[in-house]
Amino acid sequence: MQYLDRINNIQKQIDTSDFDGLLITRPIHVQYFSGFNGSNSSLLIHKGVAHLFTDSRYTTAAKSEAPHCELHIIRDVIFGAVELAKTLNCKVLGVESDWISAATYQELLLVDSPDIRSTKNLVEDLRVIKEPAEIAAIETACDITSLSWWQLLEEGVEGKSEFELTVRLEHLFRINGAQDRAFETILATGPNSAIPHHHPTARIVQKGDLLKIDCGAKYLGYHADMTRTVVIGKAAAWQREIYEVVTKSQDYGKSLCKPGADVFPINDELYTVVKDAGYAQNILHASGHGVGLEIHERPFLGRKDGILSSCMPITVEPGIYIEGRGGVRIEDTIEVVAEGYRDLTKATRDFIEW
Amino acid sequence: MQYLDRINNIQKQIDTSDFDGLLITRPIHVQYFSGFNGSNSSLLIHKGVAHLFTDSRYTTAAKSEAPHCELHIIRDVIFGAVELAKTLNCKVLGVESDWISAATYQELLLVDSPDIRSTKNLVEDLRVIKEPAEIAAIETACDITSLSWWQLLEEGVEGKSEFELTVRLEHLFRINGAQDRAFETILATGPNSAIPHHHPTARIVQKGDLLKIDCGAKYLGYHADMTRTVVIGKAAAWQREIYEVVTKSQDYGKSLCKPGADVFPINDELYTVVKDAGYAQNILHASGHGVGLEIHERPFLGRKDGILSSCMPITVEPGIYIEGRGGVRIEDTIEVVAEGYRDLTKATRDFIEW
Repeated sequence: MQYLDRINNIQKQIDTSDFDGLLITRPIHVQYFSGFNGSNSSLLIHKGVAHLFTDSRYTTAAKSEAPHCELHIIRDVIFGAVELAKTLNCKVLGVESDWISAATYQELLLVDSPDIRSTKNLVEDLRVIKEPAEIAAIETACDITSLSWWQLLEEGVEGKSEFELTVRLEHLFRINGAQDRAFETILATGPNSAIPHHHPTARIVQKGDLLKIDCGAKYLGYHADMTRTVVIGKAAAWQREIYEVVTKSQDYGKSLCKPGADVFPINDELYTVVKDAGYAQNILHASGHGVGLEIHERPFLGRKDGILSSCMPITVEPGIYIEGRGGVRIEDTIEVVAEGYRDLTKATRDFIEW
Repeated sequence: MQYLDRINNIQKQIDTSDFDGLLITRPIHVQYFSGFNGSNSSLLIHKGVAHLFTDSRYTTAAKSEAPHCELHIIRDVIFGAVELAKTLNCKVLGVESDWISAATYQELLLVDSPDIRSTKNLVEDLRVIKEPAEIAAIETACDITSLSWWQLLEEGVEGKSEFELTVRLEHLFRINGAQDRAFETILATGPNSAIPHHHPTARIVQKGDLLKIDCGAKYLGYHADMTRTVVIGKAAAWQREIYEVVTKSQDYGKSLCKPGADVFPINDELYTVVKDAGYAQNILHASGHGVGLEIHERPFLGRKDGILSSCMPITVEPGIYIEGRGGVRIEDTIEVVAEGYRDLTKATRDFIEW
């Protein structure tokens, strides 16, 4: 990953701001600039230098993962960074006000120097455009996800419980090279598939069920996000119908994803397909989001969250949920490219009676 | 779990405070009072009633998991709760200033009513004393952890990689009834065992290695935390020696854990054993913490964090780390009881040459 470029880029932001140092307190942002991801850390960016703060449990890891950073070992990583900022003669310190607690912020206001200034979205704005190595990591995570999902089906699902299948799928991710799952798998069968974010239970998969699996592998810190829904045995007409509507809605949504497109209207636009088919009341969630070091990150479809451009990976994931009966969601991770989009998720979207 | 008792207890705290409603924004605290643990939620406690806010992805789950709460479906769960507080004629609203961002807090100060008041540790203070059902869940999690660790050893470890063993252990947790791992397993071999919080690598376990495993199962939302260190093959004298020192230090530390004991001095006290043995420079972390709905929660040994009492589960976990050679940590989860303490972790602490 291009850590030095990232530090240079944020330093340029600092140079045009009203503060001369930036305190990074969000763990995922510390990782973004340093490569280090211990549970207790902060980063001070000042005059192009990244100062990494962590405690003695992580000395060895921080040295090896963040050789480009100046390392400071201290228990209180926030006040340690503020002390250093003072020593370095930093006059005004920017802090990430979305990622620092109100209590800590109030304490910071009491230190005599530097002055404290709230900042928002500085790092998030940098993160939306991915480097080639980041896209490659996400694509590998997507490939592991597709492969593992297919292997799970091939091993047979009828007669197994939601929980058993979940455990097996997450194990397959790691057997297939993932460092971990990207998030807790949402595996839902039969009527449970009507619950968008269902926790897997002891329910046994049976003929006639919809089997909805929202899952992803994690690779080099990057996340995949995919949902597939299949029918166990012969499909009922209503199952086939909502599957077709969701596929059509997703296709339309993907076609809207291209450089220059505003992410705000895409959500309503793609759901017009679902509404026109008579399922307006069965829409329960927004239809996509960025993906990267986090499973959900900017930009979010349906929010006033910016304009798409090349090298942005996002998900497109409409769903239809009929309470008590079942639901279908189809979700791909795609990359916005010059020509429009490219599928990073390659698992089949064919209608499957398994 | 005794949700209604918990709500009554926090209402009593509110009754003696300078605010008449409490906004809960920390997810684990929402779960503590409601049983619901979706990714987007808040809770308003007002006049003994718990109002739960979440979005439409979670309607079904919230209804079924939190039937004792008034449910409100809205995307912006914080401002939704503030709006309701206003409607309910709440004059002053307490907010958890450790668990709300500075940015959101600043926005809340701009709403015309209710007034906003910072609170700290209200819920944390309630959570330190566990109900019998909470202790039982932790003990089950500990039993699954002990069993799975032993099974991992019995399957054979020499010639396998750190990562392979980690994946297998976390799979064993779930085969043995855990809902999940409690945290990312720290499995370290040979020189890597000198890194307190090591990420498992491709390194292959070989004769003469220390094999240090810090792991835990999760059960009904509650966490186990255990560390065991064994030697692969015949132990060297230095390995046996540091193992004995750590055991002695842990025994002494446990003996200090009883109702009425201040948690602050226990850390220094138990590490005197390690210092007296000549390993003062090999101490890299604090020696214990509470455990429950979180893997690390109050009280923390070595901080000014209160007095132990019955029904508090805590860990005791000294370690010695020799850079480049290896390290030993032994960690048990114990419960403070009237007579002193009781081991919830039952895995053997014998010195093992495997």
